[in-house]
Amino acid sequence: MNTKYLLTAAALGVSLAAVADEGQWQPHQLAELQAELSAKGIEIPGKQLADLSQYPMSAIVSLGYCSASFVSPNGLVVTNHHCGYNAIQNNSTKDNNLIEKGFLAKSQSEELPAGAQERLYITESVTDVTAQVSGNLPAELTGSERYEAIETNRKALIKSCESDANYRCSVVSFHHGLEYFQIKQLMLQDVRLVYAPSEAIGNFGGDIDNFEYPRHTGDYTFLRGYVGKDGKPAPYSVDNVPYQSKHYLKVNANGVRAGDGILLAGYPGRTSRYRLADEIAFAADWQYPAQVKTYQQIISTIDRLGATDADLKVKYASTVKSLNNRMKKLQGLLDGFKVTDIHAIKQQQEQELLNWINSDSAYQQYQQSIGALKTVIDAEQAYTQQTYYFDNAKRSDMLQAAMLLYRLAVESEKPDAQREMGFQQRDLAMIENRLTRMEKSFHPTMDLAIWSEQLAEYLAQPDAVRISELDAALGLTPGMSQAQISAKLAALYPQSELTSTAGRKAWLGKTPADFANSSDPFIKLAVALYAKNKALELEEKTLGGQLLQVRPAYMQAVIAYNKTLGKPVYPDANSTLRITYGTVDGYPAKDGVYKTPFTSVKGLIAKRQDEYPFSLPQKLVDAYNAGKTDGYYYADLAPEYKPGLLCRIGGCAKPEVKAFNSVPVNFLSSADTTGGNSGSAVMNGKGELVGLNFDSTYESITKDWYFNPEITRAIHVDIRYVLWLMEHVDGAQNLLEEMDIVR
Amino acid sequence: MNTKYLLTAAALGVSLAAVADEGQWQPHQLAELQAELSAKGIEIPGKQLADLSQYPMSAIVSLGYCSASFVSPNGLVVTNHHCGYNAIQNNSTKDNNLIEKGFLAKSQSEELPAGAQERLYITESVTDVTAQVSGNLPAELTGSERYEAIETNRKALIKSCESDANYRCSVVSFHHGLEYFQIKQLMLQDVRLVYAPSEAIGNFGGDIDNFEYPRHTGDYTFLRGYVGKDGKPAPYSVDNVPYQSKHYLKVNANGVRAGDGILLAGYPGRTSRYRLADEIAFAADWQYPAQVKTYQQIISTIDRLGATDADLKVKYASTVKSLNNRMKKLQGLLDGFKVTDIHAIKQQQEQELLNWINSDSAYQQYQQSIGALKTVIDAEQAYTQQTYYFDNAKRSDMLQAAMLLYRLAVESEKPDAQREMGFQQRDLAMIENRLTRMEKSFHPTMDLAIWSEQLAEYLAQPDAVRISELDAALGLTPGMSQAQISAKLAALYPQSELTSTAGRKAWLGKTPADFANSSDPFIKLAVALYAKNKALELEEKTLGGQLLQVRPAYMQAVIAYNKTLGKPVYPDANSTLRITYGTVDGYPAKDGVYKTPFTSVKGLIAKRQDEYPFSLPQKLVDAYNAGKTDGYYYADLAPEYKPGLLCRIGGCAKPEVKAFNSVPVNFLSSADTTGGNSGSAVMNGKGELVGLNFDSTYESITKDWYFNPEITRAIHVDIRYVLWLMEHVDGAQNLLEEMDIVR
Repeated sequence: MNTKYLLTAAALGVSLAAVADEGQWQPHQLAELQAELSAKGIEIPGKQLADLSQYPMSAIVSLGYCSASFVSPNGLVVTNHHCGYNAIQNNSTKDNNLIEKGFLAKSQSEELPAGAQERLYITESVTDVTAQVSGNLPAELTGSERYEAIETNRKALIKSCESDANYRCSVVSFHHGLEYFQIKQLMLQDVRLVYAPSEAIGNFGGDIDNFEYPRHTGDYTFLRGYVGKDGKPAPYSVDNVPYQSKHYLKVNANGVRAGDGILLAGYPGRTSRYRLADEIAFAADWQYPAQVKTYQQIISTIDRLGATDADLKVKYASTVKSLNNRMKKLQGLLDGFKVTDIHAIKQQQEQELLNWINSDSAYQQYQQSIGALKTVIDAEQAYTQQTYYFDNAKRSDMLQAAMLLYRLAVESEKPDAQREMGFQQRDLAMIENRLTRMEKSFHPTMDLAIWSEQLAEYLAQPDAVRISELDAALGLTPGMSQAQISAKLAALYPQSELTSTAGRKAWLGKTPADFANSSDPFIKLAVALYAKNKALELEEKTLGGQLLQVRPAYMQAVIAYNKTLGKPVYPDANSTLRITYGTVDGYPAKDGVYKTPFTSVKGLIAKRQDEYPFSLPQKLVDAYNAGKTDGYYYADLAPEYKPGLLCRIGGCAKPEVKAFNSVPVNFLSSADTTGGNSGSAVMNGKGELVGLNFDSTYESITKDWYFNPEITRAIHVDIRYVLWLMEHVDGAQNLLEEMDIVR
Repeated sequence: MNTKYLLTAAALGVSLAAVADEGQWQPHQLAELQAELSAKGIEIPGKQLADLSQYPMSAIVSLGYCSASFVSPNGLVVTNHHCGYNAIQNNSTKDNNLIEKGFLAKSQSEELPAGAQERLYITESVTDVTAQVSGNLPAELTGSERYEAIETNRKALIKSCESDANYRCSVVSFHHGLEYFQIKQLMLQDVRLVYAPSEAIGNFGGDIDNFEYPRHTGDYTFLRGYVGKDGKPAPYSVDNVPYQSKHYLKVNANGVRAGDGILLAGYPGRTSRYRLADEIAFAADWQYPAQVKTYQQIISTIDRLGATDADLKVKYASTVKSLNNRMKKLQGLLDGFKVTDIHAIKQQQEQELLNWINSDSAYQQYQQSIGALKTVIDAEQAYTQQTYYFDNAKRSDMLQAAMLLYRLAVESEKPDAQREMGFQQRDLAMIENRLTRMEKSFHPTMDLAIWSEQLAEYLAQPDAVRISELDAALGLTPGMSQAQISAKLAALYPQSELTSTAGRKAWLGKTPADFANSSDPFIKLAVALYAKNKALELEEKTLGGQLLQVRPAYMQAVIAYNKTLGKPVYPDANSTLRITYGTVDGYPAKDGVYKTPFTSVKGLIAKRQDEYPFSLPQKLVDAYNAGKTDGYYYADLAPEYKPGLLCRIGGCAKPEVKAFNSVPVNFLSSADTTGGNSGSAVMNGKGELVGLNFDSTYESITKDWYFNPEITRAIHVDIRYVLWLMEHVDGAQNLLEEMDIVR
């Protein structure tokens, strides 16, 4: 352990309170943050931001997996290019490749259906339902009883809320079970593709630049929401009309300057900011390295087989892409832990909390909170280590499909309300979709190679980790080579019908008895493993239920302590609507390197190469070199920038941007974001759109655990780049006219 | 051509005048630069800097290939680790590897002889001898006559100057023949190794970090000059005593801060700042790409053969290292030309000069200067293209040795004064040394492979490029494959005695007739090519003589023009003593990235890996982590730093270093340096040592052609890192006491 880091942590005075621009706030919390907002230069009152029916929050939407916002009275929506990718791909053919060419509808009649699965969700209400979910649970419930009781209450609330078919509802835990909110979202089912730049612009830099800065990606796409003539959500129909949202964001063509305060609103997915030091240590020392090893094995297997078989290569391209993305994230986490000793920081935060608890008998109620949490976490970590290799030993898409189908058959025997979440009536379309989608990314040869490798790895583990049901079902014995395992498994595939979509779908609606009588080897294996899987699930629920008791207790202590400091506490991200604010700002990336807050079209062109993902449309280069930059050419992005805003950690440097002389492309801010925030509106102090969030820097990857204000930066597309491309490169004058552009 | 770049060049108002910190000044010019020095905060008067017998310039020394300085009254010298490498290597054995371990003499008696070839040169006088060299040459001389006349005059002056054997003299052209100066250097022959850090410190980052920043290299070594008891230079003897220099540099342990002005004195090797646009274009479009191709061929051949033969790999390791270094430099040049359109800048400068010439009939005398120069340059470029492949066709160390020996025999027939420079009596030791050194880096197998490949490349060129003497001597015919050539050449090696050092040396002192009668195939080839080589040499001398007439005329115009602007003109570097001044400063490395001026021990430790060149001595890490940094730990390196000093080009950013909190390791300045400046003293405004120059950034590589003040930065070792290592890591208290350390 580097003692300097401990000193640094100590010198920081890091506390459990939110500092600087940290915080993915629930909208209702903004009312409490008026002083902070004002200090940032945010002019919209916190109370207005808290009101989801007011400007600007009523203009913020979700795609389910990404964030977006309305930017015209007629349902025009802007999000990231990578978020609109499905819509573009669904309309692309070999002969008319919209991904490559880009697409622009010159009128509404030219707009294309985004795809049957695409949705726009508009959060209309967020209601505290803690009392209904966990208000009356007896303390003496066992872990699994607590878990099931909460699930039953959640399902009942959802069912009642979704009685109106235009809405999608969820009941979500905040502060890890301390509070529950019911989220009610209007769901538009007719989404259309309006305008996407070519991927040379929209995905400039590609996977190579993923998580990197300097960045030059035009990661934006325009969609439009449609409804029936009655104004209500309806499936796609030519007769549908554009949706009229209550509000839509104004667009500010002057963008922002270094040092400006910004607001960012969207749907961040998941963070772990309130984990204990022990949990960081487990992730850093055991879990992440184990995952790195597993992912590397799978990637190298796919690469090896793909090298000599183009079909395999294409089928598993998205799997590799996703694994590489996770690998880069894992590497970023492990690298980040080396740079900032988050474990030590968390230890210090826990000690600080303990000191506070011990400082006054009034806090005695919190005395046990940390210890109780640690006990459950120990058990959870032991469980994770115990089951990690068994989980990997089931890494066959065939087996996964068989287990899914059998579980569905078992659950379907029960009344809908009692079924496991994910296997209810409302989930059937998604399950069928999943069974169909598998054909795009599955091949028996690769499935066999990956599965047998993971089984060999599982078999190499100590006896205690192995599962006798699996060993028996597959005839595995210690010391078997991967070749032996592979030979054994190879025989199973030809005997199964699950290799085809029709074969898989044929099992929908069958009874458990049908499964029990099947001679399909994968169905038989799923049946053979069912009891063990169920037993492990029970263990998980028991742990989950225990955590739902001890984490809220710990969070109560954290919140109480911060209350004494006058600081509100934001909940970990959970895919619900949040607001964060920050500053347009660079950061010290490493010793000797400071990353400045804006990139430019000049720099974009300097990065140009012949091949994708660094190629550029000639018309972009020509427009820039011809000086067609009126209205978007900035000589100086920060005359008034006051350095030193965030400099508390040693070695920090601030730029004074003296001159810029180009069109801005991407910019950095200290806003607090995570996955799910892709496409989030970045707004100036008036709530006018100035950019779209689309990524974070490599140094920021650890922010899911700890927000280091010195180096954590989100990467945004500058709205000036978007508008410049629309006006001077892609000729999207119709959309520019539709939007309300402030200059 | 990117028009934006042209605009940038135009906007810059780039002129032939020295701007900002550009300028490798002859010491005597410093008297003219008093205003600039004062503006930088340099307290020593320019007149004092101009006086080589005064502090600090009398403390500046040369190793012949590197720069250095005296830092104690007893001849203690500090230079770069890579400059002291010979001295360390000469004292290393397998069992006592000082390169790896480092070395510290705890007393003078423990100091080790650096090696018989090592020298310290102290420039005592620099005398204008233009009149004697070129003052009376008739205008009607042909090119080769002019060349020979100048050479004869130079040789006579050197001979007369070197009548005192303690001195080494040279007569060097400045401004490409406009002026000549005689440099008289006291030559110490007894140099000893005093203290070198381990290569883990001294070469941290190795070849990977070469030309890179951020940098963390402790590139320093201490030597000592010894003389006879009479105070005069003498070869190594145990009875010798430390040399007492007139002055030695004080060392300032407070170092510098961002924004401080610095002085740098040393021996820069070669620049091309006054070349025409046509010359840049030729280098960028023809010469550099041709060299890249040749070097890549050789490197890949060495790699291929070395992969299966450890002996070959070791023998050619230094060749590959040197080729890789040249490749990186070439790549940096080609990359740099893409970023800054130096060709356009030079065109504009030429136009500016022409406009000035045409502005007044008084400047009529300069009217022809650019045109006349262009004519000779055209001829020179044609010659280069004509002979490039023939030169490569002689890339055999065997053939080179044979040609060297035969030329020596021919020259030796003449009286010494009439011999070609390089083949005079004073050069014999160097020639013998070269024939011996060849054994370390030569193997017939590799020589054959490289040579035959280059011959095949030569043979693939148009007939006009080929040399009939070579074709005839080796029996080469168009269309021969490399395998056929190789088979032919392979037969030659076993018949030659030049493969051994003894065999090569046996030819020293032989007559041309002995060579003519030899049956050694390489000797025969050398004799067969002699007339052609000589004829080409005459062509070169003709061109050289013409250039010695037209370049001075052009430089006269440049100097006259700048005089009207009140700006002195510094000559291109020519390995003579120069002074440059600059500012401690970062730079915008690319769009979105600003490199800050200091790196730290904190950053060094963060870069640590298990393997060299990124490993670190545990004692360094321990000392730092234990907080043993008293006197060298800096909280803040620039509270008073005023940004905006050099920001004229668009997109420039300035750091305000808010806090540093570590021991500085390396720093950047805008001083104007090039190869040969390695080891140069970096001094504060009082002339106290604050660092050692050792490298330049990648973005600066093009500075040999054009000094772009915005991005050109030299990399220095911070003296605080050196002193910290001496005090807290390596225990060199004896040397700390010997130096005059100011705090």
